[in-house]
Amino acid sequence: MRYAYLGPEGTFTEAALRALMPQAPEADLVAYPGVDAVFSAIRRGEVAGGVVPLENSLEGGVSATMAELINGDPLLIAAETALPVRFTLFARDGVALADVKRVATHPHAYAQCRGWLARNLPDAEVFTVSSTAAAAQAVAEPGAPYDAAVCARVAGERYRLNALAEGIGDRSDTATRFIQLVRPQPLPEPTGADRTSLVAFLADDHPGALIELLQQFAVRGVNLTRLESRPTGDGLGRYCFCLDADGHVADPAVGEALMGLRRICKEVRFLGSYPRVGLGTELSPFLPPRGTTSADFYEAERWLARVRAGEPG
Amino acid sequence: MRYAYLGPEGTFTEAALRALMPQAPEADLVAYPGVDAVFSAIRRGEVAGGVVPLENSLEGGVSATMAELINGDPLLIAAETALPVRFTLFARDGVALADVKRVATHPHAYAQCRGWLARNLPDAEVFTVSSTAAAAQAVAEPGAPYDAAVCARVAGERYRLNALAEGIGDRSDTATRFIQLVRPQPLPEPTGADRTSLVAFLADDHPGALIELLQQFAVRGVNLTRLESRPTGDGLGRYCFCLDADGHVADPAVGEALMGLRRICKEVRFLGSYPRVGLGTELSPFLPPRGTTSADFYEAERWLARVRAGEPG
Amino acid sequence: MRYAYLGPEGTFTEAALRALMPQAPEADLVAYPGVDAVFSAIRRGEVAGGVVPLENSLEGGVSATMAELINGDPLLIAAETALPVRFTLFARDGVALADVKRVATHPHAYAQCRGWLARNLPDAEVFTVSSTAAAAQAVAEPGAPYDAAVCARVAGERYRLNALAEGIGDRSDTATRFIQLVRPQPLPEPTGADRTSLVAFLADDHPGALIELLQQFAVRGVNLTRLESRPTGDGLGRYCFCLDADGHVADPAVGEALMGLRRICKEVRFLGSYPRVGLGTELSPFLPPRGTTSADFYEAERWLARVRAGEPG
Amino acid sequence: MRYAYLGPEGTFTEAALRALMPQAPEADLVAYPGVDAVFSAIRRGEVAGGVVPLENSLEGGVSATMAELINGDPLLIAAETALPVRFTLFARDGVALADVKRVATHPHAYAQCRGWLARNLPDAEVFTVSSTAAAAQAVAEPGAPYDAAVCARVAGERYRLNALAEGIGDRSDTATRFIQLVRPQPLPEPTGADRTSLVAFLADDHPGALIELLQQFAVRGVNLTRLESRPTGDGLGRYCFCLDADGHVADPAVGEALMGLRRICKEVRFLGSYPRVGLGTELSPFLPPRGTTSADFYEAERWLARVRAGEPG
Repeated sequence: MRYAYLGPEGTFTEAALRALMPQAPEADLVAYPGVDAVFSAIRRGEVAGGVVPLENSLEGGVSATMAELINGDPLLIAAETALPVRFTLFARDGVALADVKRVATHPHAYAQCRGWLARNLPDAEVFTVSSTAAAAQAVAEPGAPYDAAVCARVAGERYRLNALAEGIGDRSDTATRFIQLVRPQPLPEPTGADRTSLVAFLADDHPGALIELLQQFAVRGVNLTRLESRPTGDGLGRYCFCLDADGHVADPAVGEALMGLRRICKEVRFLGSYPRVGLGTELSPFLPPRGTTSADFYEAERWLARVRAGEPG
Repeated sequence: MRYAYLGPEGTFTEAALRALMPQAPEADLVAYPGVDAVFSAIRRGEVAGGVVPLENSLEGGVSATMAELINGDPLLIAAETALPVRFTLFARDGVALADVKRVATHPHAYAQCRGWLARNLPDAEVFTVSSTAAAAQAVAEPGAPYDAAVCARVAGERYRLNALAEGIGDRSDTATRFIQLVRPQPLPEPTGADRTSLVAFLADDHPGALIELLQQFAVRGVNLTRLESRPTGDGLGRYCFCLDADGHVADPAVGEALMGLRRICKEVRFLGSYPRVGLGTELSPFLPPRGTTSADFYEAERWLARVRAGEPG
Repeated sequence: MRYAYLGPEGTFTEAALRALMPQAPEADLVAYPGVDAVFSAIRRGEVAGGVVPLENSLEGGVSATMAELINGDPLLIAAETALPVRFTLFARDGVALADVKRVATHPHAYAQCRGWLARNLPDAEVFTVSSTAAAAQAVAEPGAPYDAAVCARVAGERYRLNALAEGIGDRSDTATRFIQLVRPQPLPEPTGADRTSLVAFLADDHPGALIELLQQFAVRGVNLTRLESRPTGDGLGRYCFCLDADGHVADPAVGEALMGLRRICKEVRFLGSYPRVGLGTELSPFLPPRGTTSADFYEAERWLARVRAGEPG
Repeated sequence: MRYAYLGPEGTFTEAALRALMPQAPEADLVAYPGVDAVFSAIRRGEVAGGVVPLENSLEGGVSATMAELINGDPLLIAAETALPVRFTLFARDGVALADVKRVATHPHAYAQCRGWLARNLPDAEVFTVSSTAAAAQAVAEPGAPYDAAVCARVAGERYRLNALAEGIGDRSDTATRFIQLVRPQPLPEPTGADRTSLVAFLADDHPGALIELLQQFAVRGVNLTRLESRPTGDGLGRYCFCLDADGHVADPAVGEALMGLRRICKEVRFLGSYPRVGLGTELSPFLPPRGTTSADFYEAERWLARVRAGEPG
């Protein structure tokens, strides 16, 4: 049983995979060069599953992940985790902060450390590469074109670099959410604290469809924790919506809401129901939780059966 | 098999009962002196069913009927019909229009003929009695305190009165809707053109409950054709809502909407699903019909079953 | 300055007029024989204003009042009051409870005392007349056809009758709400605790109009305290809605909501803004109050002016 | 009067600037190395305005632009345009398709040409750089590390490269929307076909805020054409919403909707009202247009003034 992750070794994604599967032997964790490569490896059956980043608290949804989830052959999300993102400036031994003229990092990391770099390395040039771990790897190579890398601690250590400055992100509370993907298979059992993810393609010829979509959740008391629009690819002004909801599709409230979406949307893609991890956001501005428990749903079903039989309710 | 109606003989309700049950022998139709008496006769099993007026296009809901439906022991509506209401002025033989000084009728009939009476009998005194048929009956008695009655043609003829003027209502398009009531029993089969009636008691501690109630229908594409508030009896400002919806409770859309009401309301009283008669109002301002057919509901159920099994949707 | 009320002397309406205008000399209070007569007297200018019942906590809206408000020439509600309704059984001197064979009262009063009468006067016949005060008056006449009247204490005393039993209503918490009407004129100043009444005629060709109407209030945080449907008179299935909202039309939230109604409805009839009296219902199931104060509205107007001028908000 | 754009010369953004300002002399168009640099140049007054990409029909919102609009010092959008995006493969003279081993381009362009590259250059390595024009520039340099660039025609021509293949995007209908930014200043006059952009930060402690936000537009009949969530930066699960609406803030419907947002949101940032260009999406799934014209709004204001004065409506 091998597992894929967005590599190279030392990425935050590797750390997320270890957090999600602490018992997996290191030899079974396989780095892939891109998000699309991780998806492909899972689809082809090279690995039992894989981990990719889904969204970041500063940059939003990870485009490559969203694109694969929306348009690629269907995979299921089987688990999630969220990790704080802390950046460290690493260099080869013997390089001091004052020596750093060329810094490599990933564009998202650059965006998150821009203030620190401007204050502390105002004259350095910044080069963006495909991942923060790739930046560390590049800095570690002999004859490297870069003097230093902004990356995760795990990446700097793996490539035996020397930390020049830690916690250089402009915000201390940045976090990234990662998901574990598998091929379609039986869903994890409901735990009582689950999350359900899906993509809804609104019907073009149905004005007001977004409010109606939200109402499908609201009337069943299903709380939404995320709503992200993405282009469908069919031209400007055409969007689909990626949604996370509290609850498991086996719950009657979530099941009924999804049937409602199925009826009013052009297409609904179910992305999985899986145990929810706290993201530090107990209050959601999306929908009022309504106190409609599964018990309420089952009681109403029994009542309806009596009513349909002509018995007094 | 005997049937009760709001009497005496000659009321519009008797005409409605004949329209609903054209084969029933006249001997089996039993007049009761009040709406409450009809309900009681059905509840006690004296009759197999009965007919009462539910609403009038000028006066609105019939209070006595609404009160029994809302607060009395539960009965089911098994059928409905709507009759145009036309009023005739009847007197005993030998009484001319110019002789009429005292007119008897029911308050609703008076309200509907007020204009004609003011123009044609400006000096006559009007007395209101318990029904238009009772007015005819009273006029027919020897030594009657009234000179004429405003009532239905059938009533005047039954009491052998003489028509002085026909069609004296101020509006020509007035109609009354009647319902046939039975004790709780298996519901009529869905016909494809049905109506479902119910009473919803909103939760007092749930602000916004009326919009939420309407949303429960809207998200399932269930069209409402009537919404009437009535006091619950628990003090000013406390109301319940009597609703008519298109469709049969056996339809998945209506069933799901009713379960939704059951969850958010303090109480829901189901009043029946029965074949719908046209009321001349194809357009309803209440809710947009949404094209969510029963077929759409069943397809969505099958899709949900696949999704819950971990299969690609 | 004379004032009309629904008579005869001794009605609950007279008591309501006295409560609303405690300084008015008794000579200036004029009894009229019907709700329509009170409306006509005000419209013709015979009186400065008048008082009629609007709704009862058991029977709902008073049809005659609703009909005049909806269809008659426009009058404004200038004030309201609510009175508990207590019924007393009155008879002439020398008549004991055991002697009572024929009881007169108004149909609403009969509905509210039905239980007591059935238990205590099971063999008595009940006759319904035009008002409870008229019942008292009739009982007081020499050679009266009735032995006793169910009416208000004030009516029994006015006609010098003898109370046989007090508080005979089946519920102890019944109340009636009365309104004071005037010809169109400048509105009462806002007091900070006002109510606004109106009638909305939904557009026939606009499905979903009722939810949209409620949303017009909800988005401005305007709380509804009453919603009553009434037939428009144009056939079964056609209704208008009588609404009471918290607040004064001079308040920006209420003003904006009314403009919204004006735009989406076929017709909106404004019935007045006037000081609110407590009806014992602090919690309303209609709409969530939203904390959008007038101060919030004025601040938003100033912000919009800056934005429209191209200034940073 | 100079104008900034996202450079280097030859980007799609330069083409957009020329489309927006066809009369501007070429000497006045100044290339800046990043989206943030364009924003800074405008804020500091180095230029009168500038052009940046806002969203792409395949990739969605441009993160750097969104971040500056949401969090940077306020600028206003004064105009917009949309350009089709067509990609060409360019190389130095003498390089044939079969010779291409190393391709440079921007990550978005790579995403959009991935299929063509996989089919036609399966063995080539792809390197992502800061813009497609930078890729062309790099390929043109003597001793370039890349053999070919995927970029716009204008870029290839500017750097005197040779087109090896045209129209290599995987979709033929890709487009990018660009905006012209200026410092806060008087807004463009309404043209009758305008768009208004804004950012709404929902109140954390206000569940259901997104539906309420959408209702603020719906009740005024204001059509939304775009809704994009972005992280606020305050942790996972905290989003703000970037919205485009039909209409100008000077229109009463848009003005009233914005005041509504101001009241219910933690913060609303107005981004501008400007002439709308067709994006090929006449049908929007967001909100039903409601036929509430500005004329309807002005008529309702006059009606309200009459009502507030106590006149019959």
